[in-house]
Amino acid sequence: MTQALALGRRGMGQTWPNPAVGCIVVADGRVVGRGWTQPGGRPHAESQALAMAGDAARGATAYVTLEPCAHHGKTPPCSDALINAGVARVVAPLADSDPRVSGKGFDRLRENGVEVITGILASEAMQDHAGFFLRVEQGRPFLTLKLAMTLDGRIATATGESQWITGASARHAVHALRATHDAVLVGGGTARADNPRLTVRGLSVAKQPVRVVASRHLDLPLLSDLARTATEVPLWLCHGTDARSDLVTAWKQIGATLLPTPLSGGRLDAAAILSALGQQGLTRVFCEGGGQLAASLLAQDLVDELHVFTAGMALGAEGHPGIGALGVDRLAEAPRFELVDVRARGGDIQHIWRRPSSA
Amino acid sequence: MTQALALGRRGMGQTWPNPAVGCIVVADGRVVGRGWTQPGGRPHAESQALAMAGDAARGATAYVTLEPCAHHGKTPPCSDALINAGVARVVAPLADSDPRVSGKGFDRLRENGVEVITGILASEAMQDHAGFFLRVEQGRPFLTLKLAMTLDGRIATATGESQWITGASARHAVHALRATHDAVLVGGGTARADNPRLTVRGLSVAKQPVRVVASRHLDLPLLSDLARTATEVPLWLCHGTDARSDLVTAWKQIGATLLPTPLSGGRLDAAAILSALGQQGLTRVFCEGGGQLAASLLAQDLVDELHVFTAGMALGAEGHPGIGALGVDRLAEAPRFELVDVRARGGDIQHIWRRPSSA
Repeated sequence: MTQALALGRRGMGQTWPNPAVGCIVVADGRVVGRGWTQPGGRPHAESQALAMAGDAARGATAYVTLEPCAHHGKTPPCSDALINAGVARVVAPLADSDPRVSGKGFDRLRENGVEVITGILASEAMQDHAGFFLRVEQGRPFLTLKLAMTLDGRIATATGESQWITGASARHAVHALRATHDAVLVGGGTARADNPRLTVRGLSVAKQPVRVVASRHLDLPLLSDLARTATEVPLWLCHGTDARSDLVTAWKQIGATLLPTPLSGGRLDAAAILSALGQQGLTRVFCEGGGQLAASLLAQDLVDELHVFTAGMALGAEGHPGIGALGVDRLAEAPRFELVDVRARGGDIQHIWRRPSSA
Repeated sequence: MTQALALGRRGMGQTWPNPAVGCIVVADGRVVGRGWTQPGGRPHAESQALAMAGDAARGATAYVTLEPCAHHGKTPPCSDALINAGVARVVAPLADSDPRVSGKGFDRLRENGVEVITGILASEAMQDHAGFFLRVEQGRPFLTLKLAMTLDGRIATATGESQWITGASARHAVHALRATHDAVLVGGGTARADNPRLTVRGLSVAKQPVRVVASRHLDLPLLSDLARTATEVPLWLCHGTDARSDLVTAWKQIGATLLPTPLSGGRLDAAAILSALGQQGLTRVFCEGGGQLAASLLAQDLVDELHVFTAGMALGAEGHPGIGALGVDRLAEAPRFELVDVRARGGDIQHIWRRPSSA
């Protein structure tokens, strides 16, 4: 199952709106088939692995990282494919929470004489599929917040200089993180200040993540790298319903997808942004700031995982804060995270935090 | 030599104004004597180790982490003690930079037929004795800055709540760090806000570090734990020459040592504070904030080592910054540090940074 999970992770960021599943077929103690959900979400992991196994699947055990589907979507159901291939046993950590599948895949297998074993490495699988589950259950994607800061939590000098605070090794790690997410999200301020491309570079990916900018007024430069590349890599703009219609039209003409989003307190509502992205099918979103968007996401308890890159540099209190105003008066009200991992990244450090499991 | 260095470190924070030296005497491949500078700086490591070795020192090799002294101070010179004990060879990483010793200890040994070998583990020894060297060469102690912050670099909420941001494990590590320094230094704001004791607790130490508060106006509460314990553990106050004389008198009566310190720009000058502490004989000072004092030390390039404890919590831009205004406009002007180590500390992380070796 550990191998199947590792295979499944190869598809992370590539398979939305489908989950990134891994599958291994084992016959007589030998791996005869391996597969993972392909870019775009099809073919599914099971059909890949079964195709590789061929006749060897007869009487074999299939390890699948999620309950095989039971409904006819764009592909025939995987539970049927497993039955038809003559698989004797299916081992899966978890039931799918998609109501079209939940329990039905396992039922269908059992009804057709396939033994079903569940629960193995369930918490790992839960973590890997968290984005898919969140989208199905809460209508929003898994949200990873990245912060690349000085050791005093600053992302730019008072004059706005921010390139580069962290080193090449940390920046490469950021590209690898982008690649495992369906979309990269930034606020309008960051898009204006940094003229970012928000693409995965220095790594080969089958599919670039969608670039999403949250900008109430759509007051973003039309002469920017994002605008220039809008027809090459998807560019989605979450904007207020009060954005100027000529700007909406201009960005549509450039090739962007426009997503009108409700406001709260004069700003784009962070939960509404994530709902809009969930509705489009996104399961994993990687937010790279700025400070205001990060604060809105934290204040609404929408951050599932935090990746902080800290450089050995201080900018002092005048520097731009990595996290904007949170409205926290008491320590007891502060957003809290559990440490997952910490490591050196070149001359910087990377620390990973996750929403507490009890929450 | 590694063992001798480890022995020497046992004295760190206890031996000022003397260096914390370690010594091992080896005869026929067997350790016959071990010693380290005792609390208060006497007896010296060599005399401890020679006393333990007795007659076995004759013809033996002594590993000493610093050049043995050659002058008559409060103890007879260690170079003479080594000669008189009949030691055949002295291995030491470094010459002492104290002009009363520098090279003279080695010369005296050689003149008396003792072989002298130097250079072994010199950079480690240099690091261990950095405080002693800085005091002798620049008249200031080694300065370690501790920052215990949220992941966005905050040390308190807007309303001033700060206890506790980091957990018990990080706080225990702070007490261990206090124990290896001659003094703990805080700014007046921290002394007022936190009513700290600044002592080493939960660890046995022969000698508590001196507590130092930097307060221009001496506007510190006379009913505080620091004032209450001033006769038990030394309390030194660096104050402006313009502090009210009745406050100077009151604090003297309480038992504090008063150190008038020059101002710069309306604040106590950070370099002047360290000079005053060096003049008193301190070799290693541990600064625990607050943000303004940390910023003054950083801005004047006086921070030799940084220990940052980061909690999995965010307080947002309204929180009190761990580092105050630095006056840095360009990234190129920002104080920079090299990563030494990073590790998990309970639910927090500890990262250690050091002044770049090229600087």
